[in-house]
Amino acid sequence: MVSLSCVFPFCRANADMIPLPTMQWMEGNLRLLDQRKLPSEETYIDCRDIDSLAEAIRTLAVRGAPAIGIAAAFGAVIAALTTDPGEKFNEAFVAKIDILEGTRPTAVNLFHCLDIQRRIFRMNPGRDSAIEALLESARDMMRSDLEASRQMGRFGADLLEKGSVVLTHCNAGGLATAGLGTALAVIYEAWERGILEKVYADETRPLLQGARLTAWELSRAGIPVDVLPDSAAASLLQKGEVDAVIVGSDRIAANGDAANKIGTYPLALAAKEHGIPFYVVAPLSTFDLSTPCGSGIEIEQRGRNELNSPGERKLLPESAGVWNPAFDVTPATLITAIICEKGVLFSPDADSLRLLLGKDRQFKK
Amino acid sequence: MVSLSCVFPFCRANADMIPLPTMQWMEGNLRLLDQRKLPSEETYIDCRDIDSLAEAIRTLAVRGAPAIGIAAAFGAVIAALTTDPGEKFNEAFVAKIDILEGTRPTAVNLFHCLDIQRRIFRMNPGRDSAIEALLESARDMMRSDLEASRQMGRFGADLLEKGSVVLTHCNAGGLATAGLGTALAVIYEAWERGILEKVYADETRPLLQGARLTAWELSRAGIPVDVLPDSAAASLLQKGEVDAVIVGSDRIAANGDAANKIGTYPLALAAKEHGIPFYVVAPLSTFDLSTPCGSGIEIEQRGRNELNSPGERKLLPESAGVWNPAFDVTPATLITAIICEKGVLFSPDADSLRLLLGKDRQFKK
Repeated sequence: MVSLSCVFPFCRANADMIPLPTMQWMEGNLRLLDQRKLPSEETYIDCRDIDSLAEAIRTLAVRGAPAIGIAAAFGAVIAALTTDPGEKFNEAFVAKIDILEGTRPTAVNLFHCLDIQRRIFRMNPGRDSAIEALLESARDMMRSDLEASRQMGRFGADLLEKGSVVLTHCNAGGLATAGLGTALAVIYEAWERGILEKVYADETRPLLQGARLTAWELSRAGIPVDVLPDSAAASLLQKGEVDAVIVGSDRIAANGDAANKIGTYPLALAAKEHGIPFYVVAPLSTFDLSTPCGSGIEIEQRGRNELNSPGERKLLPESAGVWNPAFDVTPATLITAIICEKGVLFSPDADSLRLLLGKDRQFKK
Repeated sequence: MVSLSCVFPFCRANADMIPLPTMQWMEGNLRLLDQRKLPSEETYIDCRDIDSLAEAIRTLAVRGAPAIGIAAAFGAVIAALTTDPGEKFNEAFVAKIDILEGTRPTAVNLFHCLDIQRRIFRMNPGRDSAIEALLESARDMMRSDLEASRQMGRFGADLLEKGSVVLTHCNAGGLATAGLGTALAVIYEAWERGILEKVYADETRPLLQGARLTAWELSRAGIPVDVLPDSAAASLLQKGEVDAVIVGSDRIAANGDAANKIGTYPLALAAKEHGIPFYVVAPLSTFDLSTPCGSGIEIEQRGRNELNSPGERKLLPESAGVWNPAFDVTPATLITAIICEKGVLFSPDADSLRLLLGKDRQFKK
């Protein structure tokens, strides 16, 4: 496994700081790497209140399902810290959690982490006690996320052979989690084992997380990466240049259908056409048994400005409309396996997912 | 059929000018609408020598397979006009044609039109005679192109039902031809007949011809258009929002495999998955019987700068490579029908294409 200090050389921070650049908790302040400005600027924004954190999540300064969840968990600490004690303390706290919950609709980790924090809050009455427990809980989530990353990396790398060329979409890396990522955790581990030859990264319109974030992360780790237009991926698979497609997920429904960044579904179709394994890597916090299948997942629609940029010049004629969904849903039938921190679930379906999550026991691996 | 003066209100030019904005022949000068700057600027560039025309083709100031072919045909006139008469006239002319031929490798129309002009040149010895014959030939091609557009529009619109919603990719419109386009000729005709409800246009990374050119063309004609990221098209088809996918082509091999703008192939895969008809619209000059199948079509690789733009800020980390093919190949088996100026060729294959092109007779329609 590539060491953290290699992937993120600026992580050798003192022990009080969370050792990752994606986010750092600094006594009442959640400091976020501003991912909107990468790779040209490595700057941070400080969130000391709920409004600034909600804005950071909405505008993708912090993004990636696991990272959004953990940022929101720290948001719960901020919610308690910025609420005056007194009669209306509970009510005001809950109102702030509701604001965070309304920032983005698709990634289930946001709701999952906030649910845990709501429970922690109820179990620890009193402002000081709540703050302490919420902070410990958020830090726990961060530690678990890192450990889950490492596990997913190991399980995923076991599926790759020496000399593998891998295609990924969007950014499911350290920047999308508090750890080493999901899809990219597999890539880091495979690189460390010496079995990875190179990575192709879809640029991932409209916000170009593949070009700006994945290529940046992998380059920093010394892993060879080529960026391609999303629409060129099918050709690359057609040419036989890729051994596996590996992506993350924002929500996995009870039947194994997986929502992920827009463009994942056509990639899965092309992988199936060419007999290339299609792996979804996601921690258990991404699984949502309360949503029976993919059609029940709310897909966030984003604004016109994303298709008019980057650049100063407006690209679209004013009278043209836009259709800009942030995510799509890949049916479970197109997924070779889901890799989570507990192992590898081949040919996922409702039964195998229920077994995995309902009984919390070891499964196919 | 929508009238030219409606689609291009500035086309009611005097009879000596070619009545389309894509290109105008003005006594020794080929004036090209600079498509790199659309839609924010409607400016023209003047090509009076081969180098400026070659540069315009290479950098996509003029683009689209039929338009490139016709621009090159006028280029042959410029080649003769800018060559001194004398002993080395023929040799110098041919060298200039070779420059034009080397500008872009995939669209067969370029080679097709230049082959015709070479033949015209050989059949009309003497500089003045050659110039006159080459100009007449180029004007013929332009007239044929417009007539072919109209025919393809009619044949294609016959395949659509009332209330149709159509998805297209890149720009196969008036801007890509000297006429009304190929795929968009069908859309204009369907709109005129009152059977088209709306158009979805893939933005078409990296050069965004869908957002910048197709949306601009359709908006000018008053046709409702929504732009979407290329990677969102599969989701749109999955939602059942689209009745037909209609695209152009840069070269159709002898077995019906069709090269077109990168991103066409995954669109065809998604259309097949969802049982949506996938139509390729192309004039006969796009058919290339000398290339047996799609794998024989040379695919142009474009530069890194296209993935680093638009915008001033560089998007890619310096150590990341790029893979940026301009085209992909859709196997004939994914094509519901090819629509050309002679009719509609359902389930195209080597036999039906040979019948169509070899015997020059009416076929399935």
